[in-house]
Amino acid sequence: MTLYYPNGQPYKEQPTQAFPGAPSGVHYGHRGMPLEEALNLTNAYYLSTDRAVIYKKPTPIQVVHVDYPARSAAKITEAYYRKASTTDYNGVYRGKYIDFEAKETGQAAALPLKNFHAHQISHISRIRRHGGIGFIIVRFTADNDIFLLDASFLEAFWQDAKHQTTRRSIPKSLFQEKGHLVPIRFSPRIDYLTVVDRLYF
Amino acid sequence: MTLYYPNGQPYKEQPTQAFPGAPSGVHYGHRGMPLEEALNLTNAYYLSTDRAVIYKKPTPIQVVHVDYPARSAAKITEAYYRKASTTDYNGVYRGKYIDFEAKETGQAAALPLKNFHAHQISHISRIRRHGGIGFIIVRFTADNDIFLLDASFLEAFWQDAKHQTTRRSIPKSLFQEKGHLVPIRFSPRIDYLTVVDRLYF
Repeated sequence: MTLYYPNGQPYKEQPTQAFPGAPSGVHYGHRGMPLEEALNLTNAYYLSTDRAVIYKKPTPIQVVHVDYPARSAAKITEAYYRKASTTDYNGVYRGKYIDFEAKETGQAAALPLKNFHAHQISHISRIRRHGGIGFIIVRFTADNDIFLLDASFLEAFWQDAKHQTTRRSIPKSLFQEKGHLVPIRFSPRIDYLTVVDRLYF
Repeated sequence: MTLYYPNGQPYKEQPTQAFPGAPSGVHYGHRGMPLEEALNLTNAYYLSTDRAVIYKKPTPIQVVHVDYPARSAAKITEAYYRKASTTDYNGVYRGKYIDFEAKETGQAAALPLKNFHAHQISHISRIRRHGGIGFIIVRFTADNDIFLLDASFLEAFWQDAKHQTTRRSIPKSLFQEKGHLVPIRFSPRIDYLTVVDRLYF
C-alpha cells in the first residue's frame, strides 16, 4: 500500500543514520534509536529521579584554532577528534563508583574486540582494582538484544587475543551465558541499574 | 645582574601566559604553572603509581561542521564551547567516588562565587547525597596558597548568596579555618590525596 502526504506526494520511508558515517542505504528506523542516545536519555531519567549521577564524558577534541568574531563568542575553526583514554560513562550509584563503555555491533554472533582500544582496557582494569564497578553494555542490532557484561570477561578475552590470531571477538553465547539481558522500557529506556543492583550489591 | 646564553645573547625572562586569553604583559613565571596543568601532572602521577584513577573531563564542545579532507582524517571547521553541567575532575580512590572542581583567583582575600555556575553546585550536591566525596581545590595566586575545601561549605555559601546582594564570595579566612592547605611538592605537584586521606577516610 502506498501512503500519501496531504499534498499528494507519495510517502517514502527515509533511511535514518544510526551514527555519523554509518553506511548509507541501511535502514535503522525499525530498530529504535542509537544506543548512545538511549543511554543518555536513561541517565537523564536516573538523574531526574535522583537514582544515580552518571554522565557520558564529552568527546575529547584537540582545538587548534579559535576565532573571536565577537567579544563574547569564541568560534573554533580548526579542531580534531582525539582518541579517548578512558571509557565513555562514569558516575556514582549507591555510594559506588560506576564506569562503563557502550558498544553496538551489526554482527549477529559476536562482538569484535576492535571496538575497544588498549587504553580503555587498562582503564577499566584499574577501575576495578581500585574498588569501582566496571562493565560494558553491548547492543546486538540484528535482534536488538542488549547485554550488560562484567568487565572481567572483556579483560580475559583481551588477554587471550594477544596470544592467538584466530578469534578476536567475544561470542554472543558468552553474553547469553555470563552477561545479563538489560530490560528495554519506555522510561528509563535501557534500565541497566536494575541489573547493576542484582549483580554488584 | 645580566645573564648571558653561551652564544653571547643576553637572557631575558619570557612572560608566560597562565591560560589562553590571559592578560598579556603579566608575568606568571614566578608563580608556577597554572593549577589545571599542575593537577593534570598530579593525576598522571597518581595513575602511574597506581594510587588513584582520576581524570579531568574533556571540555564539552558543540561540533557544527566537519570536513573530511582525507578518508581517515576528520577536520572540525566550526564548533563552539559549551558550558559544563558537571565538575571538571572525577574518578575512584580507595573504593570511593571522588569529584571536584579546581579554581584559581587573583583576589587576595576571597574567592568570588561567580567562578561557579548553578549546574555545578547542584551536581556536587547530588554527588555527596549519593555517597561520593565532593570538594573544591582553590589556588590564591597572590601568595600561591592552595586549599582543599569540602563542598558542603560551597553549597552553604551558594545558598546564602541567594538571599543577600552584598557578599557573593567565600572569604579566604574560611579556607584557612575550615579548609586544608594542600602541600606543593616536586612530584606529585599538588598532593591533594594526602588531605583526602585525612579528611574522608
